[in-house]
Amino acid sequence: MEVGILGATGIVGQQFVAQLKDHPWFKLVWVGASQRSKGRRYADATSWKLASPIPSEVGGLRVEAATPGNAPRLVFSALDASVAGDIEEAFAESDHLVVSNARNHRMTPNVPLLIPEVNPDHLSLLKSQRAQGRTGAIVTNPNCSTVILVMALAPLKKFGIQKVLVTTSQAVSGAGYPGTPSLDILGNIIPFIEGEEEKMEAESKKILGEAMDNLVKPHDLIVSAQTTRAPVIDGHTAMISIEFETPPETKEILDALVKFSGKPQAMGLPTAPPQPIVYLDDECRPQPRLDADRGRGMTVSIGRLRPCPVLHHKFIALGHNTIRGAAGAAILNGELMAATGLLD
Amino acid sequence: MEVGILGATGIVGQQFVAQLKDHPWFKLVWVGASQRSKGRRYADATSWKLASPIPSEVGGLRVEAATPGNAPRLVFSALDASVAGDIEEAFAESDHLVVSNARNHRMTPNVPLLIPEVNPDHLSLLKSQRAQGRTGAIVTNPNCSTVILVMALAPLKKFGIQKVLVTTSQAVSGAGYPGTPSLDILGNIIPFIEGEEEKMEAESKKILGEAMDNLVKPHDLIVSAQTTRAPVIDGHTAMISIEFETPPETKEILDALVKFSGKPQAMGLPTAPPQPIVYLDDECRPQPRLDADRGRGMTVSIGRLRPCPVLHHKFIALGHNTIRGAAGAAILNGELMAATGLLD
Amino acid sequence: MEVGILGATGIVGQQFVAQLKDHPWFKLVWVGASQRSKGRRYADATSWKLASPIPSEVGGLRVEAATPGNAPRLVFSALDASVAGDIEEAFAESDHLVVSNARNHRMTPNVPLLIPEVNPDHLSLLKSQRAQGRTGAIVTNPNCSTVILVMALAPLKKFGIQKVLVTTSQAVSGAGYPGTPSLDILGNIIPFIEGEEEKMEAESKKILGEAMDNLVKPHDLIVSAQTTRAPVIDGHTAMISIEFETPPETKEILDALVKFSGKPQAMGLPTAPPQPIVYLDDECRPQPRLDADRGRGMTVSIGRLRPCPVLHHKFIALGHNTIRGAAGAAILNGELMAATGLLD
Amino acid sequence: MEVGILGATGIVGQQFVAQLKDHPWFKLVWVGASQRSKGRRYADATSWKLASPIPSEVGGLRVEAATPGNAPRLVFSALDASVAGDIEEAFAESDHLVVSNARNHRMTPNVPLLIPEVNPDHLSLLKSQRAQGRTGAIVTNPNCSTVILVMALAPLKKFGIQKVLVTTSQAVSGAGYPGTPSLDILGNIIPFIEGEEEKMEAESKKILGEAMDNLVKPHDLIVSAQTTRAPVIDGHTAMISIEFETPPETKEILDALVKFSGKPQAMGLPTAPPQPIVYLDDECRPQPRLDADRGRGMTVSIGRLRPCPVLHHKFIALGHNTIRGAAGAAILNGELMAATGLLD
Repeated sequence: MEVGILGATGIVGQQFVAQLKDHPWFKLVWVGASQRSKGRRYADATSWKLASPIPSEVGGLRVEAATPGNAPRLVFSALDASVAGDIEEAFAESDHLVVSNARNHRMTPNVPLLIPEVNPDHLSLLKSQRAQGRTGAIVTNPNCSTVILVMALAPLKKFGIQKVLVTTSQAVSGAGYPGTPSLDILGNIIPFIEGEEEKMEAESKKILGEAMDNLVKPHDLIVSAQTTRAPVIDGHTAMISIEFETPPETKEILDALVKFSGKPQAMGLPTAPPQPIVYLDDECRPQPRLDADRGRGMTVSIGRLRPCPVLHHKFIALGHNTIRGAAGAAILNGELMAATGLLD
Repeated sequence: MEVGILGATGIVGQQFVAQLKDHPWFKLVWVGASQRSKGRRYADATSWKLASPIPSEVGGLRVEAATPGNAPRLVFSALDASVAGDIEEAFAESDHLVVSNARNHRMTPNVPLLIPEVNPDHLSLLKSQRAQGRTGAIVTNPNCSTVILVMALAPLKKFGIQKVLVTTSQAVSGAGYPGTPSLDILGNIIPFIEGEEEKMEAESKKILGEAMDNLVKPHDLIVSAQTTRAPVIDGHTAMISIEFETPPETKEILDALVKFSGKPQAMGLPTAPPQPIVYLDDECRPQPRLDADRGRGMTVSIGRLRPCPVLHHKFIALGHNTIRGAAGAAILNGELMAATGLLD
Repeated sequence: MEVGILGATGIVGQQFVAQLKDHPWFKLVWVGASQRSKGRRYADATSWKLASPIPSEVGGLRVEAATPGNAPRLVFSALDASVAGDIEEAFAESDHLVVSNARNHRMTPNVPLLIPEVNPDHLSLLKSQRAQGRTGAIVTNPNCSTVILVMALAPLKKFGIQKVLVTTSQAVSGAGYPGTPSLDILGNIIPFIEGEEEKMEAESKKILGEAMDNLVKPHDLIVSAQTTRAPVIDGHTAMISIEFETPPETKEILDALVKFSGKPQAMGLPTAPPQPIVYLDDECRPQPRLDADRGRGMTVSIGRLRPCPVLHHKFIALGHNTIRGAAGAAILNGELMAATGLLD
Repeated sequence: MEVGILGATGIVGQQFVAQLKDHPWFKLVWVGASQRSKGRRYADATSWKLASPIPSEVGGLRVEAATPGNAPRLVFSALDASVAGDIEEAFAESDHLVVSNARNHRMTPNVPLLIPEVNPDHLSLLKSQRAQGRTGAIVTNPNCSTVILVMALAPLKKFGIQKVLVTTSQAVSGAGYPGTPSLDILGNIIPFIEGEEEKMEAESKKILGEAMDNLVKPHDLIVSAQTTRAPVIDGHTAMISIEFETPPETKEILDALVKFSGKPQAMGLPTAPPQPIVYLDDECRPQPRLDADRGRGMTVSIGRLRPCPVLHHKFIALGHNTIRGAAGAAILNGELMAATGLLD
């Protein structure tokens, strides 16, 4: 199946390009970007920032304008939030399936905010989008730190999650490029990330909520987030404390975490990690440098599960922010849609 | 007044040396260390790691064995916990006033665990030490991350602190030298610091507790700590959420923080910062690189005070771990003792 | 004497503000910046990035447009090179003495490129500027890495320096703000700094050259520079190999370095360090984190002097790039001019 | 072919384990280490520091003592230099082929100091080892920074290399574990690495020299090395200036570099990169974070080739210090020996 990338020259777009290399189902044939890049070879229009080289079959593609037309039906959107809203809608109106990493439509009532292991049934919202006369559709993945939090919460939903206090230490790749100035972050911690805490608090409720006809009834858990930026390249760490309705034993939580598996694993989706969650028995883990790449960046690593003297239990979760938290998340969304016939 | 340093060649000992340079009351005349360094010039026996040079009047001192005898009455202890217990007791039995940064005697019932702005009245425990026939005494300061947490909690004690959830991001200087290997921390976060969480949870209760005749009745607040190590040189950051008995307004908390002042300020102790706590209005602050040195490293900087959706309020506190959290803390303890006649 | 700063809100301008705090001769009364900042309080117009706070007497100054008029006679220029050329000339034409850190006029024949310890006699070029009818004047300091190199070469000039091969490892503060993106420099080395090698190669020849009536006859040494950016906050390190006309003994070089002193020391200029060069006997030094602040950032630290198997001798030099290499350099230039009657 | 690793639990040993995973020719069946680890499972005896997990088939191996006996004939040595000398000789005397990364025997006259692309003919020295009655043999690879330098020099040997001035910026993984303390290297540059400059200067001459019956006639090039440690995880950068007997044009040097290929490429050895040297046209490259992994860590990346005003030409070379500079180097040595019948 031929696919395209909207916003292909930015840092998230580059991650899509890298993740789609050698993909067994999707073939990248179209790259769209701003007017400035239009007509140039992708390799020339892009200031490539990844350690892996530009795939040769992509480097020669001509960058096209970010307008519907000759793009393939399925497009992944790595657009900046400043422009994503309108462009993605224009594509969806023109029969395109837009699988977006941008924040603009995440909280739109009938747009799925999807983590394939967690809420695949939310894709039922697409019927509501179609009912509006739209031939295409928009599907989104959560903010990078939300994904890691919710992946860790989902297996525990059955115990009745009531309150979550989460503090993050987030990698600079999450801020894009040029992103965080080095003078701000070398040997330093910045205790604030614009809009991040609000996203974690609101998106969690939608993802864990219940899909109705044309909206999601949010889960009633309460999340208090404190997000910080740290001098780390890739990998967001989340320190999580939880209060449950029915406090489980530590062993029950551990069991739920390590046995967690979902539709992507059952269906063998290409980007799905064998285990969505791995529990590490070493109390010095997880660490971004050693654990972010686990499961080719799609596994969330958890460690240090123990009782919390204030709420009920606490632990540490870590995931790769630009793979599980961005490009990989969207591609897994696309795979789930393909495997369930939503791209036909 | 002449003073000495036990464990003077280590990294904490060096910080004592640096902090005592040009001290108006205390003159460093004696440096004690392990047998291996005995008899050597301090400058030769020490692998000096601070940006400021070795004070010339100290560089030429001969290192002596860590045994009582010709040391001055007041000695600051920067001994490693592996040896501090016995040596400090031996000094206290031999008429020395030991002002220690080591953890060994912090939780000993009749040893004050002192933050001069917070619990100066705990010095009354020295009577109990004397009653045991000991002519000297031992006074301790808390663990570096505990100091920062408790400095931020103390002004709020009047609102009835019940529960505290704190996550830290701690500097590598807190791990001593050689301390954290660079392969472990460059571009990384380590989610565990041996013994640190237990210290924060227990020491807080003692410091905020009530001194009785020969012990401290601990405060009944409950602390849940999650401590991490980050690639930062100096400055521990603490993300703090609090549940109160009588939830105050945000404005009341802010007032309490900025108006906080104690005996060191009232008495004008040389190492006391003009304001123990400074509140920063910029939501990107406090940051270790920009704020740890405030008040010559003795001020705790606080920012981002706001309601917490899970507990009542949350904010960020930051302090210099090797000054307010170690050498500076002990010297301020010594100053308080001098100013209140306890060194006579 | 009242002074002003052109380009006061940028990162170099902030360094000027910090360096001028409590200056015994100069009182900062005027801050000029771009149209966008005009009329705002300095504290509001500036995104302050230094660890020391904004001096209170400066925070309240109103930012003025960067045009001559009510500025004091002596203005320090921290302007960006994109605008410095014309603005500095306009000020010089209007009777202002412009002491600039910008690169624009460094190689202008009758503009002194000044290091007060090295070539104070080059101020004689001001006569040529005056002869053009200009009532003011422009004086410049070299590029930050050039200063460190030439400070180390100047004491050795008497041995006949013929060839210099220098490789640098430069701090991110030299790239301004936002400057180097963190994704480019965390855990990384960038082997290229735009224009830097050319500056070092050309400026060295002018500074070490001979001032004539209206130009400088360049020194005939040949410099080959290789400059790199490293994840260091402050402090440029230069690895230097030299070929001499008359190869001296190692001891002679050492003597020349440690005995080096100049007019700023002889005249006791306020910003002059007691020793312009300090030689460190520890082979692990100099290091940016431990040595950049020496002499309040104005001393160049040298170490590891030894024979070079390819040229004659090699050693390491380190200096504070934003103090000795920028704001401090310009202020010392201003002090030299004041002390020699050039500001009257 | 079954192989073993001497010193398997250290950081270099871990790199051997990781590099040998899924090797098409070599099967790791034996791990030897110090007495302390003997008898324990490899996974338990090792503090694993790599991002990739311990291969499951290795984790369960029992660690054996570092004595000949039941080890396979071919053993890779990752022993620390403090013990490698004697142990490696004992193995060689007992019929083992020791392919060592340790420095101890590198300069032994009849021990090959091997880079398979550069001096495969030096394996002829094994005849001299055999002539001493030894049934086994020792083969070594160079120091990590020497490999990178010599890989870049080898293609230019034909132009008559006379003098080389090289400055390095080296990664912390080269210092082993725990290695460089974080307090020494965070935001810092250390201008000295014990023994490193001497190794680069001497080893280069041997590798580029001519193998005779029982020794190597060293090449007469003169190398002046200045080595520094930087806050980089993996990847040594070398800034290289060269003086030639017959100065070539820039284009000729470029041609020689990009066309460089050797026996490993011709024979298709499993660890051989397709191109030993890749030239990067971007003047901001090579960079350790983006380029060290090229060719699975076995390619040396070169950039910024240009005339040198002092010597003839200069450029930047970068390689992965623990792969091309250590474990990968030794394994390629083993492959060359296997492919040329020296293991029969």
